[in-house]
Amino acid sequence: MADVFLALVHYPVYNKRRDVIASALTTIDIHDLARLAATYDLAGVYLVTPLADQLGLAQQMIDHWSRGWGLEYNRNRAEALTLVRLARDLAEAEADITATHGRRPMWIGTSAGNYADSWMNDHPRITTFKGMVRQRHQPDPWLILLGTAWGLTDDVLARCDVILEPIKGSTEYNHLSVRSAASIIVDRLLGHGANGGIS
Amino acid sequence: MADVFLALVHYPVYNKRRDVIASALTTIDIHDLARLAATYDLAGVYLVTPLADQLGLAQQMIDHWSRGWGLEYNRNRAEALTLVRLARDLAEAEADITATHGRRPMWIGTSAGNYADSWMNDHPRITTFKGMVRQRHQPDPWLILLGTAWGLTDDVLARCDVILEPIKGSTEYNHLSVRSAASIIVDRLLGHGANGGIS
Repeated sequence: MADVFLALVHYPVYNKRRDVIASALTTIDIHDLARLAATYDLAGVYLVTPLADQLGLAQQMIDHWSRGWGLEYNRNRAEALTLVRLARDLAEAEADITATHGRRPMWIGTSAGNYADSWMNDHPRITTFKGMVRQRHQPDPWLILLGTAWGLTDDVLARCDVILEPIKGSTEYNHLSVRSAASIIVDRLLGHGANGGIS
Repeated sequence: MADVFLALVHYPVYNKRRDVIASALTTIDIHDLARLAATYDLAGVYLVTPLADQLGLAQQMIDHWSRGWGLEYNRNRAEALTLVRLARDLAEAEADITATHGRRPMWIGTSAGNYADSWMNDHPRITTFKGMVRQRHQPDPWLILLGTAWGLTDDVLARCDVILEPIKGSTEYNHLSVRSAASIIVDRLLGHGANGGIS
């Protein structure tokens, strides 16, 4: 089975005007994704940002909950945070996985874009959730890319090996938080639903 | 089809020592659940707390994003927040749904407890996700109760008409955030997975 990693990407992502920006780290994202990773037995969560001060803050936060008072106060939080890794860019995350797991990870892009967007209709590498589940036995690790702010840039999506179909709810509204989207994606790929239907 | 509501319960819930407390509202929960509700066409999200100052803050926050600058800045946020309702307790939420939808809602409890807990093995009203999906055609609205802090009290669970099986990941770790748990529960009940398997 493929080892599965998440990458929470803070650069390059779009802002609401579609400028390419580096978004700020959000501590609640880090906790939520770490807990999600611990629940579904993921191999790691990469926080990706080129900003040295942001990486320093993330490390401080992780240290706070992993030692002394923080550890005493909430061991579940500390346990989950052991899965968090820091990377200055996606290449660094990829190199780290390749070094530790012996194989280059498959980049799995995600997007809230909907089928009305032409790039998505035309994109040759769109994969359904079910299609992705069927590839789970292959040995290459999975690196699931999650964009913060207004999402991953087209350049990043173009570099992905596959792009996961958007989460379709029951309406045209497609503005889930990255915390919600990550939870649903991981559950669809690795939860009960991944084995041919919910229990 | 049953109209579906979420109730984010801030009282009565447990703290880590299993004292019954009123937890503080978290604005990020409100946004995340409102966006989730907008995506899956839910009928509403009740924030349940008896604390008048907390209800006042929630109303201020909703007003901020629903008017003037807040509305201009992010219309998707405002659109989702129209689904949020305030209630002093679960009885008030129930009365509101009964008044507006003409039928008393079914209370659907949720818990992170696992099958090792005897109360869950013995509980006569535990329902699987699939079992719940099969009841979707019934006319009574659904009120899905989500506990903040360390979860819904046993008294609240005892009053529920059914209790949804816990989300089982791939490990024994069962400390998802309420934002993650709500997202996975709603997707399993109402998303693609609810129709006999993911796409």
